[in-house]
Amino acid sequence: MKVYGDSQSGNCYKVQLTCALLNIKYQWFPINILKGDNKKASFLNKSNNGKIPLLELDDGRCLVESNAIINYLAHGRYLLPNDVFALAKVQQWQFFEQYSHEPYIAVARFISKYLGLPENRRAEYESKHLGGYKALKVMEQQLQKSDYLTGDKITTADIALFAYTHVADEGGFDLSQFSAISHWLERIKMQDNYLPMPLL
Amino acid sequence: MKVYGDSQSGNCYKVQLTCALLNIKYQWFPINILKGDNKKASFLNKSNNGKIPLLELDDGRCLVESNAIINYLAHGRYLLPNDVFALAKVQQWQFFEQYSHEPYIAVARFISKYLGLPENRRAEYESKHLGGYKALKVMEQQLQKSDYLTGDKITTADIALFAYTHVADEGGFDLSQFSAISHWLERIKMQDNYLPMPLL
Ligand SMILES: N[C@@H](CCC(=O)N[C@@H](CS)C(=O)NCC(=O)O)C(=O)O
Ligand SMILES: N[C@@H](CCC(=O)N[C@@H](CS)C(=O)NCC(=O)O)C(=O)O
Repeated sequence: MKVYGDSQSGNCYKVQLTCALLNIKYQWFPINILKGDNKKASFLNKSNNGKIPLLELDDGRCLVESNAIINYLAHGRYLLPNDVFALAKVQQWQFFEQYSHEPYIAVARFISKYLGLPENRRAEYESKHLGGYKALKVMEQQLQKSDYLTGDKITTADIALFAYTHVADEGGFDLSQFSAISHWLERIKMQDNYLPMPLL
Repeated sequence: MKVYGDSQSGNCYKVQLTCALLNIKYQWFPINILKGDNKKASFLNKSNNGKIPLLELDDGRCLVESNAIINYLAHGRYLLPNDVFALAKVQQWQFFEQYSHEPYIAVARFISKYLGLPENRRAEYESKHLGGYKALKVMEQQLQKSDYLTGDKITTADIALFAYTHVADEGGFDLSQFSAISHWLERIKMQDNYLPMPLL
């Protein structure tokens, strides 16, 4: 099994963390999007939209979209519930992540950490904070009621939302006001086989 | 079973179309977001983020996120494959829809159809076209290879992407250059029990 990605990308880290927790071995192929590795024909042949992460199975079949990949890898394992409604709740939080969380928190982090918060992107950066704090409030509300997003067990929904939440400070977000989120982050870091995101 | 939504919203229409195709009966509760129905406490109690569509089961459990809802409704039915990799491909296209398609095509349609393309949103509108056309090209490429997005059978991935693609012209997108998409749209409209989106 091969995984193409960039360890500094939260979307790629989701796959690395899932594999670590589940003891899944894979070959890692670093892709540098700033250098355009993802625009090369060899990569575009495997991916449908030139994005990382990309999973390639031993038989050559390929899968993109971080959350689809981690759900595939976790099939039948402890990170996914069997109950149909519980599974739908995992997906609910993952679609929330892609629609209402990542586009704000990951982008604010990108503008700040990678681009150094240039003046011409400050307005966008501020607007990302509005949306990002809204998403954090939705998470906080749930995590005041349950240890993990969908109940008392960790699932791939938690991995999906952990990826960018645990580095949200790098995008200028102050998590100290979210105590339930802060405890949840610690709970995830305490998992057996937990793999931290590599430092830049 | 209750569904809260607005028929003019593609995300809500996904649920209506899925129920129609699967012959699932439900009570429809119209929510007018322009009037703030979704900000009322009675609605926020059920939803976690104040968004429609919202599914409420007879026992009171609630689910949000259009794609999570339609996958839940389609469990064990012909709109979802059994094979684990095929299921992952359905999710791949749905995450693509939420991340790379809906935020461009649905928003361009909203600015144009609902707001009447005001001058101060024209730049945003144009930028949505860039992203939207990119998403349409990714779909076109796949649909040149297979009748439906994940193979030779319709799935909830097709429903997810049909919702805003079939009204993309209302957002200023010219679909005539995408012949595989155009045939796919017709194929979906020919399904038994197909339900058109209500006219405004
Ligand atoms: N929805 C996708 C998003 C993936 C994504 O945006 N990846 C970025 C890196 S974090 C990328 O490949 N960007 C390059 C590009 O879009 O050209 C997922 O969850 O996997
Ligand atoms: N990711 C959500 C998006 C739902 C969504 O954005 N719904 C809009 C109507 S199309 C809404 O409720 N907007 C009101 C708001 O965000 O306050 C889904 O797929 O269900």
